[in-house]
Amino acid sequence: MQYSLSELVKGLDVTIQGDANCMISGVGTIQQAKLGHITFLTNSSYRKHLLSTEASAVILGLEDAENCPVTAIVSRNPHYVYAKIAEYFAPQRSEYSGIHPTAIIGEGCEIDPSAYIGPYCVIGQHVKIGPRAVIGPQCAIGDFSEIGEATQLDARVTLYHGIKIGKRSHLASGVVIGADGFGFANQKGAWHRVPQLGSVDIGDDVDIGANTSIDRGAVENTVIENGVKLDNLIQIGHNVRIGENTIIAGCTAIAGSTVIGKNCMIGGASCFAGHISVCDKVMITGMTAVTKSILEPGIYSSGIVGAVPNHEFRKNNARFHRLENLIQRVKTLESSLKELTERKQS
Amino acid sequence: MQYSLSELVKGLDVTIQGDANCMISGVGTIQQAKLGHITFLTNSSYRKHLLSTEASAVILGLEDAENCPVTAIVSRNPHYVYAKIAEYFAPQRSEYSGIHPTAIIGEGCEIDPSAYIGPYCVIGQHVKIGPRAVIGPQCAIGDFSEIGEATQLDARVTLYHGIKIGKRSHLASGVVIGADGFGFANQKGAWHRVPQLGSVDIGDDVDIGANTSIDRGAVENTVIENGVKLDNLIQIGHNVRIGENTIIAGCTAIAGSTVIGKNCMIGGASCFAGHISVCDKVMITGMTAVTKSILEPGIYSSGIVGAVPNHEFRKNNARFHRLENLIQRVKTLESSLKELTERKQS
Amino acid sequence: MQYSLSELVKGLDVTIQGDANCMISGVGTIQQAKLGHITFLTNSSYRKHLLSTEASAVILGLEDAENCPVTAIVSRNPHYVYAKIAEYFAPQRSEYSGIHPTAIIGEGCEIDPSAYIGPYCVIGQHVKIGPRAVIGPQCAIGDFSEIGEATQLDARVTLYHGIKIGKRSHLASGVVIGADGFGFANQKGAWHRVPQLGSVDIGDDVDIGANTSIDRGAVENTVIENGVKLDNLIQIGHNVRIGENTIIAGCTAIAGSTVIGKNCMIGGASCFAGHISVCDKVMITGMTAVTKSILEPGIYSSGIVGAVPNHEFRKNNARFHRLENLIQRVKTLESSLKELTERKQS
Repeated sequence: MQYSLSELVKGLDVTIQGDANCMISGVGTIQQAKLGHITFLTNSSYRKHLLSTEASAVILGLEDAENCPVTAIVSRNPHYVYAKIAEYFAPQRSEYSGIHPTAIIGEGCEIDPSAYIGPYCVIGQHVKIGPRAVIGPQCAIGDFSEIGEATQLDARVTLYHGIKIGKRSHLASGVVIGADGFGFANQKGAWHRVPQLGSVDIGDDVDIGANTSIDRGAVENTVIENGVKLDNLIQIGHNVRIGENTIIAGCTAIAGSTVIGKNCMIGGASCFAGHISVCDKVMITGMTAVTKSILEPGIYSSGIVGAVPNHEFRKNNARFHRLENLIQRVKTLESSLKELTERKQS
Repeated sequence: MQYSLSELVKGLDVTIQGDANCMISGVGTIQQAKLGHITFLTNSSYRKHLLSTEASAVILGLEDAENCPVTAIVSRNPHYVYAKIAEYFAPQRSEYSGIHPTAIIGEGCEIDPSAYIGPYCVIGQHVKIGPRAVIGPQCAIGDFSEIGEATQLDARVTLYHGIKIGKRSHLASGVVIGADGFGFANQKGAWHRVPQLGSVDIGDDVDIGANTSIDRGAVENTVIENGVKLDNLIQIGHNVRIGENTIIAGCTAIAGSTVIGKNCMIGGASCFAGHISVCDKVMITGMTAVTKSILEPGIYSSGIVGAVPNHEFRKNNARFHRLENLIQRVKTLESSLKELTERKQS
Repeated sequence: MQYSLSELVKGLDVTIQGDANCMISGVGTIQQAKLGHITFLTNSSYRKHLLSTEASAVILGLEDAENCPVTAIVSRNPHYVYAKIAEYFAPQRSEYSGIHPTAIIGEGCEIDPSAYIGPYCVIGQHVKIGPRAVIGPQCAIGDFSEIGEATQLDARVTLYHGIKIGKRSHLASGVVIGADGFGFANQKGAWHRVPQLGSVDIGDDVDIGANTSIDRGAVENTVIENGVKLDNLIQIGHNVRIGENTIIAGCTAIAGSTVIGKNCMIGGASCFAGHISVCDKVMITGMTAVTKSILEPGIYSSGIVGAVPNHEFRKNNARFHRLENLIQRVKTLESSLKELTERKQS
């Protein structure tokens, strides 16, 4: 399968510098692409490879166009242009439809005839599945759940009862949506389960990565708004709300009842305390512990990051724990100096 | 379904201030509850909503009773009272029993006739399953495992061989119990598996959250005592022991052979080194790295938490790494001042 | 089943001090082992138990041999010797082979007759499965994947399409290999999926722990080299490469396009930024945030670790955030002192 460059860029806001008719048969990284491949330059740390690329064409920004030794597709958003062109080379999803004979379907379900339900799925009662939705093998879907048009669940996904998912969303393998929130009341030393009566609402165009879990709400629902992107192994506690188009990297943990705004970008392995709120357009760098609400857009971070040699780290640790001693020494210096100065003046 | 308030509080140690006969048809949060709902006030940050609540009744502590504008259920433990009342409004678990015809059951199993085993489960040999236990769809249970009375496994749970679980415990979807502990011996650069000969013992009334994993012991068993509550995506290494009624929030990692005491509360995304012990009644705040044993009850924390604007964070990082320089400057000041003082006195 | 000590050590480079013919029927920890058991001393913090052990034999290093009250198996690598001896007491894996009648196998697969495929597996098209490979129950394997000789997948493992795994590797339950990498391009506020066209290559003798996820590459493949050992709940982003014999403890997160060298040891709950590289023979202590490339072998760490009482932690936090103030005070002292000295000298 190959395409002419002009075919690939149809409908995209780009300028071609070079041969618009060159034929493209695949994609490659800027270092590894060969003749016939298209590549991209979207991260300046790979700029050094531009001059020596063997690709037939490079998608890049205006600032790199004049140094491009081959045909250039110049765009203000080369990453987006690459995403659209790469779709031509992605394996086509098979046009499955119908219900595999081994899938077990409860009573009262409404399953669109264009939807596909894979082998060994177990679907509860009164479940609704929209047009062209794809449910991979071995999924478990609880009673009264609803899955919108063209949404895809990969293999081995669990939805508990009453979960709603919008259109064109995609849940990777191992995802668990709607397990009980972590709510326990202590009475005389023992913990008693607090019934989790809410559910989970997931919007349109949401992506959820492998083995991520989103708990059902305690009273109201946990809510994931349209366009949210969640990476792998993320934990979303009960009653959390994640705003539209917010993107969260892997291994992040968000404790219960916390609200994250729209268009936020959260770095991996971050951690949010419960019952706080983060406004729109906040960026959090990786491994940050957010313990209080954030009220202004901006970039936020916490802690000491950056690995240093362990012997230096241990010294830093020790110095840190002796800060009080240093403060006292400065205090002593200040009063001695003051005394000395006064004596001199008297 | 609705209940009179007096019916709902039967057997609970509460005082009703207002109309004990008001009818309650559901629960709501203090902000969202409507007429006919019962709500609760257990976290002081929600106190500001009390005066404007539209709920028909509020469960709260003595300190809030006089400001309650509607019927109040006053208790010394309003969270527990709420947990008990909310049970009336939780969906009733279907009274399943029997073995689904698609479940595959090994030889020599003892399965109580009142237990339920869901579709596409694969149960090994000589497995014991107690009365009223519920095994959700698509679970895998290894040879010689034992599941106690009224314990529930949700969909897609794995128990390896020889795992024991007590009564009334609850494992959420995606949980993996008894995979091999992470034990490897290095010989000439290559890592060789150390056989993991122990198993996992889980007590009564234990809750385990979605996608949490608990490894089998290397020699002795990994042990989770009665009443322990584990949130989602927690990692428990081999040979670990978690004491009675300890509660651990999501994404916590506990390395091998570490022992946690009874009645501890561990904040989310915390991390415990291996081969250490933590005594009873310890509280660990979120994202703490516990690297040494803790011998006294109390609240413990580590690191620098609290997200600050990134430019401030970068300055802090730099200041931290220049602490040695600051210490040297203070030293120099001290000796200069000493010299000056001595000269003056001479 | 019991063995004479001389039988157990056959082929191992050890010296026996004591009775080479004593009969061994099992293993135990140094504290709990009984008569007839063999135990080991590989961690000096357990040395205090040596004198009182009830084991019949102890595997230990030369430095502990003279204090051993019972038969000693002396080795320069007692951990490895234990690993080999413990294999005699591990439950024998059943010699399964063949395809369970409930497994669903796609067209064009090549499955060695000595391989085993468990119940309710769903295998795609053109999948190759090598001799003596074992696929546990309820696994999902995508089209064109390849699994090498004697590799074992435990229950409920997902491989997406086109994944390659070498020989003698072992994937624990809940593992997900080859889900889409986390790649999205932002266009006018919305995130658009970047097709993930690469795959995942996993070498020989690789171990992967429960619920770990490894994403497929964006363009090239994500690569896990021979002999790598990954613990539970680890996240490996797209395009990552992990070098031979590197071992990574649980809950570690490695962001996309990062390259880790050979023979590294990574502590648990660590976090790596994307697009960096770590050279061979690097050790990273637990909960470290690696934000820049590491170019020299050695031990590296970050942050402030070690839990302290919370009131001390809060003071430390406050002192840390007032460091700038301290620096200013030292500056003021320096200039005052300079002035004083100069005045004196004038």
